[in-house]
Amino acid sequence: MKELRVAMVGYGFMGRAHSNAYKRLNDFFPLQHRPVLKVACGRNAEKTRTFAKVWGYERVEPDWQKAVEAADVDLVDICTPNDTHMEIAIAAARAGKMVLCEKPLARNVAEAETMVEVIEKAGVPNMVWYNYRRVPAITLAKQLIDEGRIGKPFHYRGNFLQDWTISPEVPQGGAGLWRLDVQAAGSGVTGDLLAHNIDAAHYLNGPITRVVAKAETFVKERKHVLTGKVEPVGIDDACLFIAEFANGSLGLFEATRYARGHKALKTLELNGSDGSLKFDLEEMEYLDYFEYKSESHVRGWRRIHVTNSEHPYMDRYWVPGLVIGYEHSFINALADFVKGIETGVPVQPDFRNALQTQKVCEAVLTSAREGRWVETGATA
Amino acid sequence: MKELRVAMVGYGFMGRAHSNAYKRLNDFFPLQHRPVLKVACGRNAEKTRTFAKVWGYERVEPDWQKAVEAADVDLVDICTPNDTHMEIAIAAARAGKMVLCEKPLARNVAEAETMVEVIEKAGVPNMVWYNYRRVPAITLAKQLIDEGRIGKPFHYRGNFLQDWTISPEVPQGGAGLWRLDVQAAGSGVTGDLLAHNIDAAHYLNGPITRVVAKAETFVKERKHVLTGKVEPVGIDDACLFIAEFANGSLGLFEATRYARGHKALKTLELNGSDGSLKFDLEEMEYLDYFEYKSESHVRGWRRIHVTNSEHPYMDRYWVPGLVIGYEHSFINALADFVKGIETGVPVQPDFRNALQTQKVCEAVLTSAREGRWVETGATA
Amino acid sequence: MKELRVAMVGYGFMGRAHSNAYKRLNDFFPLQHRPVLKVACGRNAEKTRTFAKVWGYERVEPDWQKAVEAADVDLVDICTPNDTHMEIAIAAARAGKMVLCEKPLARNVAEAETMVEVIEKAGVPNMVWYNYRRVPAITLAKQLIDEGRIGKPFHYRGNFLQDWTISPEVPQGGAGLWRLDVQAAGSGVTGDLLAHNIDAAHYLNGPITRVVAKAETFVKERKHVLTGKVEPVGIDDACLFIAEFANGSLGLFEATRYARGHKALKTLELNGSDGSLKFDLEEMEYLDYFEYKSESHVRGWRRIHVTNSEHPYMDRYWVPGLVIGYEHSFINALADFVKGIETGVPVQPDFRNALQTQKVCEAVLTSAREGRWVETGATA
Amino acid sequence: MKELRVAMVGYGFMGRAHSNAYKRLNDFFPLQHRPVLKVACGRNAEKTRTFAKVWGYERVEPDWQKAVEAADVDLVDICTPNDTHMEIAIAAARAGKMVLCEKPLARNVAEAETMVEVIEKAGVPNMVWYNYRRVPAITLAKQLIDEGRIGKPFHYRGNFLQDWTISPEVPQGGAGLWRLDVQAAGSGVTGDLLAHNIDAAHYLNGPITRVVAKAETFVKERKHVLTGKVEPVGIDDACLFIAEFANGSLGLFEATRYARGHKALKTLELNGSDGSLKFDLEEMEYLDYFEYKSESHVRGWRRIHVTNSEHPYMDRYWVPGLVIGYEHSFINALADFVKGIETGVPVQPDFRNALQTQKVCEAVLTSAREGRWVETGATA
Repeated sequence: MKELRVAMVGYGFMGRAHSNAYKRLNDFFPLQHRPVLKVACGRNAEKTRTFAKVWGYERVEPDWQKAVEAADVDLVDICTPNDTHMEIAIAAARAGKMVLCEKPLARNVAEAETMVEVIEKAGVPNMVWYNYRRVPAITLAKQLIDEGRIGKPFHYRGNFLQDWTISPEVPQGGAGLWRLDVQAAGSGVTGDLLAHNIDAAHYLNGPITRVVAKAETFVKERKHVLTGKVEPVGIDDACLFIAEFANGSLGLFEATRYARGHKALKTLELNGSDGSLKFDLEEMEYLDYFEYKSESHVRGWRRIHVTNSEHPYMDRYWVPGLVIGYEHSFINALADFVKGIETGVPVQPDFRNALQTQKVCEAVLTSAREGRWVETGATA
Repeated sequence: MKELRVAMVGYGFMGRAHSNAYKRLNDFFPLQHRPVLKVACGRNAEKTRTFAKVWGYERVEPDWQKAVEAADVDLVDICTPNDTHMEIAIAAARAGKMVLCEKPLARNVAEAETMVEVIEKAGVPNMVWYNYRRVPAITLAKQLIDEGRIGKPFHYRGNFLQDWTISPEVPQGGAGLWRLDVQAAGSGVTGDLLAHNIDAAHYLNGPITRVVAKAETFVKERKHVLTGKVEPVGIDDACLFIAEFANGSLGLFEATRYARGHKALKTLELNGSDGSLKFDLEEMEYLDYFEYKSESHVRGWRRIHVTNSEHPYMDRYWVPGLVIGYEHSFINALADFVKGIETGVPVQPDFRNALQTQKVCEAVLTSAREGRWVETGATA
Repeated sequence: MKELRVAMVGYGFMGRAHSNAYKRLNDFFPLQHRPVLKVACGRNAEKTRTFAKVWGYERVEPDWQKAVEAADVDLVDICTPNDTHMEIAIAAARAGKMVLCEKPLARNVAEAETMVEVIEKAGVPNMVWYNYRRVPAITLAKQLIDEGRIGKPFHYRGNFLQDWTISPEVPQGGAGLWRLDVQAAGSGVTGDLLAHNIDAAHYLNGPITRVVAKAETFVKERKHVLTGKVEPVGIDDACLFIAEFANGSLGLFEATRYARGHKALKTLELNGSDGSLKFDLEEMEYLDYFEYKSESHVRGWRRIHVTNSEHPYMDRYWVPGLVIGYEHSFINALADFVKGIETGVPVQPDFRNALQTQKVCEAVLTSAREGRWVETGATA
Repeated sequence: MKELRVAMVGYGFMGRAHSNAYKRLNDFFPLQHRPVLKVACGRNAEKTRTFAKVWGYERVEPDWQKAVEAADVDLVDICTPNDTHMEIAIAAARAGKMVLCEKPLARNVAEAETMVEVIEKAGVPNMVWYNYRRVPAITLAKQLIDEGRIGKPFHYRGNFLQDWTISPEVPQGGAGLWRLDVQAAGSGVTGDLLAHNIDAAHYLNGPITRVVAKAETFVKERKHVLTGKVEPVGIDDACLFIAEFANGSLGLFEATRYARGHKALKTLELNGSDGSLKFDLEEMEYLDYFEYKSESHVRGWRRIHVTNSEHPYMDRYWVPGLVIGYEHSFINALADFVKGIETGVPVQPDFRNALQTQKVCEAVLTSAREGRWVETGATA
């Protein structure tokens, strides 16, 4: 078995989720590579040490530049705030390392384009962690579409509803709260949540060509953790957009952190001439499917409990009826990435693919700012 | 159009539900008969007058014997407490009237047998209002079974859960509360609720041959409305039983008025080798159906929204997607009864059919009292 | 009891639904007025006669002008295609009759404004049949909002999804299909479906001030029933819009007849700082409510089964747990209208109120056509 | 950190699930012990080697007796078929090892009593893997009961429905199919499935005192994998029972492998005077709770998405809204076991506690065989 020596940059929520994937990969997937947690790297020395100890990283490296260039590292995983993705990814690619980058790829299209250019020049394997493509129910949705079960698509919907920033007492900035700081995050819900929905839409329904959007910042000022002062909030708290897809269908997207009662309601629905599909991340074991060709008196939305061995990835886990969770989407994504290395067929979404999502995000933000329809650059 | 002149005995909840059915029948069903609300009859003169006025009965008759024998009456509908079903039904039958009797047919098998004997001798059309057979979703369930979609049956389940008598302050007896008075009702949840489940089970899964049961009276004493005194409670507050069906499947039944959070959770589920069916009266617009022959990766419980014109009875009402309610089960039952008169094919469940349900109820109560398995008299 | 003598113009789906309401009103609501089905009026003589016979109208009148001016008529109910609403309503108002008009009020704002002007000058009681306000769950939603349970609103969503026109073989125009003929209908899903969602939004969340929309006609040509020729389709098959509400919240609306698997999925959701509400017409017995003030470990969306006597209108019908249906929303609306006459407090939505919905519809269509944000005329 | 050196006996489904728990424990739970996967032990040498390699056991030991007595082992985990639990557990206890035994504890009460006697004499820490107690939603259910939210209990229900043995072509016996072989398993669904429901019932609602049961073997003969011959099936394919609880409430239990459409529908429901609780393992992220004290117009079943940091165990995993899966119930159980060692407060269910579940199972089987009510030995 070949070693796949990992340098992890960042120790937050994503640092944990990715570490878990590396550690568990070989328990479930028969592969020729074995991840080795080599280096943990982060700004806060103590936190990095604790993180490394819990997850079993062999050593700690305070200087990310040394970490990504280390001779005993094959793969760099970027789990830091968005404002650091570009420089770390570029350094890693230039050092010839494989690069796995947490989504969104960057704060904006300019950064993302630079990253794509460098990584493609370096020719290193790369992936962006749009992990939800590897939720079995979503992978199954893709399979059903590819089997021709949905027919001509008319409508696509994607929501990502949360409610954790409603209180004006929640501050912005710093560890854990950088997602509210526009400097660190680039945007608010657009990059954090809509990006996931856009990636899923691209995966299932193809390119988005035009958008018109509306964004809102409900809480205009919040205390900034780093400065200690009340400062204007630069992110979008909520963002909604209407989309045209290249295939002629219409899209409706919404993300917010102000939808009381929803914690991670990431939904998708696709309606086509021959069938429809629905999914909700809060009950991710289900895919709902409506088949038009059924006899008319027994037509109905069927809840597929996506836990059978014939469902994507599920033969690797337990027995039918027993659910896996959020974290397994990362294990599945990693398995596909490693399989990509082993077979030479690169996994998606890579940096170039994620750039297209970035372009839609930017078109959305531009549209919201300028109050007009904006092209994404993709063509029908 | 022929008139169908109705004498209604009783003015309570069922008196209202049945009156509504008579009044609305011809708005929806093309039949050769037109119900005419001729006589309202009840013990309390003022309540009877009010009832007659609201629903448009032509006259009021305090003496039920005169009402059921009146020359201008074709059909007698019995909506009184259970202890009066027998004598009214017998008088009506002997007077040559059609007889529609609210369920349960009687307080016990002895009464029911007498009623069947008399009514069959009289040869008059008759029906017992087990209205739930005419909920479109349940009629559809029967249709799917008859189409062979369920295969060999293994399991049948039926619950009827309510929560309205939990407080010991609820009295027993008198108008509206006779269901808690064993003298008037004959039994508690067994006759009131389980009887519905048993009728549905007979309809969908055939005869029940043996039972073992457990009944409980949680509140042992309640004030009696008629006597004003605290008296022992003679009814069963809850009753559960295991059943053997003639077809070899196993049944599990439960009814209670002590299931906090359930108001009219009347469910059924049937599991067979080729498919399964599920229903819940609290969302009666749905029938859930699991089809085993679907390809394995798209198998799932499908929610059939039973509101299409191809679904039972639904071509008579609105448009697909728009639901009808509880009361329509009575209209549908009445339509079938009238169609039975017009075609000469008697509708089910008639008195004889309801006698079999009565026998199962009695076997259940006997089993609960004696702590042993009891035969129902039906054979495999 | 005073008579309320009704002239019904139109005998289609809405003619039936409204007739049902008139006939059943006094069975359930204690009022001082009694509707009398006096005149049925329609273009097709035979269909009108059949309709009149089924529902019990006293006479048939082929000339709507005579019908609305008849001395023995108190109230005119307009259930014809949209292109005739204006002239009938004006004639009825000028004849001093009460006017109940099916929604949408008119084909466009110009027509609606004329109607409002005339009817207000005539000073006659009037109502537009946005019946869904009287679905008990939606009325309860309004009550919970008025009780302050939702707090500051952030998001409102309303979908109306159907799937009945996906086949290009469905023709346009003529009886039953005038909704696909832009000349008769004025618009497609905007006037037919979105209008309902906009009315509900106004009712629950106040005025919409600005919109940006996208409309689509998926099937560009259909055979026209009246001409027999394939003709361009002028209606919107689907329409989506983003809205700003005067109260600062964001709206997202969508209606389509191309959402496979949905027959009448009319949803609404409101998210506020203190709670959230959700509703779906396909299971109209439920209102989902999320209460933030609950202790954190027991917070959850609760499904309120809106069938208790303390819920709006439900004390008029059966017992807790037993559902009413679609048609009861018309009975409830009529009861409120009659109560309005009796108390002198006019019911909503009247013509003026419905004009505001018309303005939003027109802003939506303009936005869809011109690709820009459009003001509705309402102010914050 | 202290090592907790594990000898795993068995390499099947449970061997995998438990191994996963040992490997992941310290990633999530801050404890003073660190499991070390020391020895894997199994009958089939090649399968054991593969298993050991995948999960990282340090060595393989074909002789279980050597494994459980090995000096470098602290804890023996028994994941073998039920007919070997007793001798392995006794040997391990006598060797002074901690013993974790997969459920059911034994094939019958006689075996279980012997095991309890020996293990208590040995005084070693012990636990039986009734892992569902540690599903966060079920642990939360227990917490809500302990907070007094349910009040006086009236009804308890527990179902475990599967559909994997419907085909008569499924053989019995051997690896993976020993659950169908009465010699290896002791019983069918009673020990395999009902035991889980009984344990949960004991946990949430206290002792069961009396039962009446019905068991069925739908497929009477199956090919035996070990003998190659068609042999009678000795297990119960389905088993239903009515129970009396010591607290006066009534229980209804059912388990089957013949419920088409259900893969792992393990439900529970408790109804009390003040509230009710519901759970279904197929959507294990939810606990449904009905609170009676809510104001009457907003009462409803609330779906608690048990993924908040204030919910049991959930502060150890991801962020609110993101679900964990089946396997985490084992991690949580292990964490509690280790905490029990560290605090000196033994975890439940230990062998003695599991003996009580065994007694109920045996009473159920006796009742099914003899057709009468049977006492469990527990007292009110």
